Amino acid sequence: MSYELYYWPSIQGRGEFVRLALEEAGAEYVDVARDPEGLAAMMRMMDDAERPPFAPPFLKDGETIIGQSAAILLYLGARHGLAPKDPAGGLWTHQIQLTLADVVAEAHDTHHPVGVGLYYEDQKDEALRRAKEFRESRIPKFLTWFETILARNPDGDAHLVGRTLTYVDLSLFQVVEGLAYAFPKATRRALEETPRVAALHGAVAQRPRIKAYLDSPRRIPFNEDGIFRHYPELDG
Amino acid sequence: MSYELYYWPSIQGRGEFVRLALEEAGAEYVDVARDPEGLAAMMRMMDDAERPPFAPPFLKDGETIIGQSAAILLYLGARHGLAPKDPAGGLWTHQIQLTLADVVAEAHDTHHPVGVGLYYEDQKDEALRRAKEFRESRIPKFLTWFETILARNPDGDAHLVGRTLTYVDLSLFQVVEGLAYAFPKATRRALEETPRVAALHGAVAQRPRIKAYLDSPRRIPFNEDGIFRHYPELDG
Repeated sequence: MSYELYYWPSIQGRGEFVRLALEEAGAEYVDVARDPEGLAAMMRMMDDAERPPFAPPFLKDGETIIGQSAAILLYLGARHGLAPKDPAGGLWTHQIQLTLADVVAEAHDTHHPVGVGLYYEDQKDEALRRAKEFRESRIPKFLTWFETILARNPDGDAHLVGRTLTYVDLSLFQVVEGLAYAFPKATRRALEETPRVAALHGAVAQRPRIKAYLDSPRRIPFNEDGIFRHYPELDG
Repeated sequence: MSYELYYWPSIQGRGEFVRLALEEAGAEYVDVARDPEGLAAMMRMMDDAERPPFAPPFLKDGETIIGQSAAILLYLGARHGLAPKDPAGGLWTHQIQLTLADVVAEAHDTHHPVGVGLYYEDQKDEALRRAKEFRESRIPKFLTWFETILARNPDGDAHLVGRTLTYVDLSLFQVVEGLAYAFPKATRRALEETPRVAALHGAVAQRPRIKAYLDSPRRIPFNEDGIFRHYPELDG
């Protein structure tokens, strides 16, 4: 039986981390909310489920519903060979994913520093201040941490964990994609200092299943409704 | 061998979720950074570890180092009977913890909407705007979600998951404690609408090991360096 992924139909957002794992795994899945009936079903499930997700994305596998992208990846990683089998390695992989989730939350807050319920236009001055710190301090700090992890991986610097691809390699690819879209200048500068991160990003983009996915209509283009938004005034 | 917890020595912060689980479990642990040498050791480990945590808290159990509070609780919960044994229940518990972590991040951002590297005094106007949305919209939305989970728990509404205490009950207690400290008026109003959350908060406070811990010098008082800060102007 195929997985059902539930996420907003018009943005990559946090759902994209799940989509990339499903695509790389070659798993059968339906991106349910891409059609209007599916979107209505998603809203109903958030209201009615015995274990209601707080927000999309969530994944349905038979009777099990799992929310929070990091928890979904923990689940999928173990089932599809996208995480180490040893418990310590699995937990380390998850820890990296949680830190990637922190990057994503901070990237979102650059354009919504004052509140998720307000428009960007209503918090533009605050966004300018927040984006400055994000791009000058946080992007380099986060990417340097990933660079260090790659450099210290005893199995080589091609992957964050072990000698094969795990879901955090896919997620780091997506974070770099998003940062490069939203903050092209700041990200280019940071990647010059973190060549292993840049190399991993390039290698993931060339994996056959990922490449096919990125070239397909299943990949929603970046846009200014998502988490990573390109507002030129926020780039340095 | 006892656990070693590494966290900032002068705040509850994200370390407190780990402390509460260790205390309830009756586990032996050392809160390493509470003395200056330990604090120096913490800083070295973040620099030097093969698997360096991005930030405190992290837990050392023998040779294993685990960062990210939600990942630490995933680890401790399974070892100390503070999480369901079935995989779906364990994942559901973890999903709730990740949502609690989202509350914590948003609570932090009420006083630091523009940047973690700046003082509160330098972003007070922005904080007033962000806190308004947090207290009027986000606190009720989050607490209502926890209320719904309690109401729908097929094993009764005394716990978020199952019929016995899990680490998310402890974490929800701590989130309510923090919200009530930082936003006493807004939180009192929200808790009137979420009686099960209020009852769970009261019940956790009365558990013998938690009560003993809260009365001990091991519990650091809330203060204006932590995540939950009481700035009266931010409460409604």
